[in-house]
Amino acid sequence: MSNNKNISIGLFGFGCVGQGLYDVLNHSQGLKAEIQKICVKDKTKSRKIDKSFFTFDRKDIFRNGHHNLIVELIDDANAAYEIAGEAINKGKNVVTANKKMVADNFESLFRLQIKSGISFLYEGSCAGGIPIIRTLEEYYDNELLCGIKGILNGSSNYILTRMEKDNMSFDKALKLAQLNGFAESDPWLDIAGYDTKYKLCILIAHAFGLILNPHDILNIGIQNISPFDIKYANEKGCRIKLLANSEKLILNGADVYRIYVLPVFIPASSSLSTINYEFNGIEVEGVYSDKQFFVGKGAGSYPTGSAVLSDISAITYDYKYGYKKLKKRINGHIPDFSKDKEFLDKDFFIKLYIRYEDKKELEPLEIADVEEQYSSAKNNYLVANVNFSSLRNINKKNRLFICRV
Amino acid sequence: MSNNKNISIGLFGFGCVGQGLYDVLNHSQGLKAEIQKICVKDKTKSRKIDKSFFTFDRKDIFRNGHHNLIVELIDDANAAYEIAGEAINKGKNVVTANKKMVADNFESLFRLQIKSGISFLYEGSCAGGIPIIRTLEEYYDNELLCGIKGILNGSSNYILTRMEKDNMSFDKALKLAQLNGFAESDPWLDIAGYDTKYKLCILIAHAFGLILNPHDILNIGIQNISPFDIKYANEKGCRIKLLANSEKLILNGADVYRIYVLPVFIPASSSLSTINYEFNGIEVEGVYSDKQFFVGKGAGSYPTGSAVLSDISAITYDYKYGYKKLKKRINGHIPDFSKDKEFLDKDFFIKLYIRYEDKKELEPLEIADVEEQYSSAKNNYLVANVNFSSLRNINKKNRLFICRV
Repeated sequence: MSNNKNISIGLFGFGCVGQGLYDVLNHSQGLKAEIQKICVKDKTKSRKIDKSFFTFDRKDIFRNGHHNLIVELIDDANAAYEIAGEAINKGKNVVTANKKMVADNFESLFRLQIKSGISFLYEGSCAGGIPIIRTLEEYYDNELLCGIKGILNGSSNYILTRMEKDNMSFDKALKLAQLNGFAESDPWLDIAGYDTKYKLCILIAHAFGLILNPHDILNIGIQNISPFDIKYANEKGCRIKLLANSEKLILNGADVYRIYVLPVFIPASSSLSTINYEFNGIEVEGVYSDKQFFVGKGAGSYPTGSAVLSDISAITYDYKYGYKKLKKRINGHIPDFSKDKEFLDKDFFIKLYIRYEDKKELEPLEIADVEEQYSSAKNNYLVANVNFSSLRNINKKNRLFICRV
Repeated sequence: MSNNKNISIGLFGFGCVGQGLYDVLNHSQGLKAEIQKICVKDKTKSRKIDKSFFTFDRKDIFRNGHHNLIVELIDDANAAYEIAGEAINKGKNVVTANKKMVADNFESLFRLQIKSGISFLYEGSCAGGIPIIRTLEEYYDNELLCGIKGILNGSSNYILTRMEKDNMSFDKALKLAQLNGFAESDPWLDIAGYDTKYKLCILIAHAFGLILNPHDILNIGIQNISPFDIKYANEKGCRIKLLANSEKLILNGADVYRIYVLPVFIPASSSLSTINYEFNGIEVEGVYSDKQFFVGKGAGSYPTGSAVLSDISAITYDYKYGYKKLKKRINGHIPDFSKDKEFLDKDFFIKLYIRYEDKKELEPLEIADVEEQYSSAKNNYLVANVNFSSLRNINKKNRLFICRV
């Protein structure tokens, strides 16, 4: 496989990742790819490269027949989906780093790829600089995987690390994450676990061949964490990490999956506890390959730009995802993926630490045996087994801090 | 890319990895590959599968026109090279896990591949279950790498971990490593750093596009380590690991490389210090992607079998290594790779801990400033800056324990 195509790139978006890609591409050797036009929204912003690169009209990019690759690095998932769809329909390959767009539209994008034969790559969407999608595709394609879990959001991991190591407040740590370019423009997506969930959706499609709608996966974030929780975790020899979790189990002879995003107490001896600041870490467990662990920068201009570059390079030799685990399920016709949520196991008990201010907020939860209970003027918590499905009942804007023990 | 070829495998060797592959292949789903004949040496050994699978005559495998893939998992590097050469000349694809064979003959195997267009894959040769070669090939193909280092030998890492965590003697730990199937049949290759060096040679060819003869790379092993050294390291907040090291530097405007295998004091806070027992860990550093870290089982029947399986799967879609970093150096004609050793920087000082019994053994070393010196009835050591190239002068069968500080 050698570079045999000249790539002319029409780029959408010139924010943190777009500018990172621009630099990385200019310093890469031997790659025949060039950014020729960049479509941006804001007409007033001053930019570090010449004006002639920019257009404010999407049509300018598509009108130009020379662009054989559309790289989409904008923020708005709906607009990104429109761009990707238009590009594929016009026979242009697409590289994107937009996890929400990919996760929200996985099935339709998968069908579009099958129909069109277009390359649609999105390594930059998951875990920045870690080549996890390509590894799941090419290395674990015939491996029986039993679990994949990880720290997938650089911004919330940065906040947790700053709070723990530097006794920083949540708000100050969040501001620093934003200043450093690790946070999404809407930080709620980071801290409430949505960003992690979108990435998890993409990973499980490649790891297990399941297409799940993000709405079907529970996510609880770190937005309500306090220094009290971090102290509690440290006293137990643990660190709090926001974890994407997926595991395959056999229940009554059938494969089922437990998939969720939750803060978790990670023992200090575990590899995942060594993942700090904006780093991401992913553990892949196979029946035969055993556990493998991947670590790298999960956010930032250059690491994500490098991941996008690697996709651009793959386009030069016509690489496409094989989606082997998904295609195994296609016998003559494409199955009804909308039923994949039936593979989710939700009827189990999970041990949680729950700190609360108002006891009323616990009411929607089905709590079985309480193992620990603590109350003081300032803080109340309990450690108990809770029915997983009852976690769905709590209000999105609750004040609870919930963490798997 | 989908499985489009039926693979009929002629297998050489049915030891630890061969049997692992057999099991993993039988449990993999959707891979159209089958082991049809296995060539083994020992006529008397009882084996867990039917006799009809086996032959003792190499020609039996090559005579059979049906085999379109030769998988070579024997111990003897010379015989393995003969088998690989014959297979390629007969137009058959080859998968191997023999690092010595690949490292010793890299240039000639590279040329054979260019000439024949045959797929020759060897993911199982480096770091067992970690997909490092494929990642260097496909993900870092256009990245400017500045270093790759790691713990690449499961057997010696198992010994070091057992000695440190369980106060085990070197000999007992080595025996356990052998019992568990982690050690090479000649354990000297593991403990003296040769196995690590072969793997390092393969990695630097893919990472930097350099073909180096293993003879040109210094390797110092752990064969002389004592509990005293481990205690010394622990007191300094470190662990001793046998490290493969490669780094790219710019000296007088030219790229040079420092490449060697040495025991190293690794601070307990470093990721590499968390790699224990038969696990391997590899750190890849790029200019833009920053540091990435890969961890997985580096030895054993199933992890290595899984790596071999992943190569077999890649053969079904005609995957070949692109060798982009090597090919960048080909301008019309293939360069004289035998001169690649001139890129090695050897003229530098390196800080070492050296424990010695007989002071005479230090004589060949060019020692500059001594920072620490200790002598007692039982143990003597010094910590000093030593000219790197003078390390070549010491006798292979010396009793020194040398460790980078």
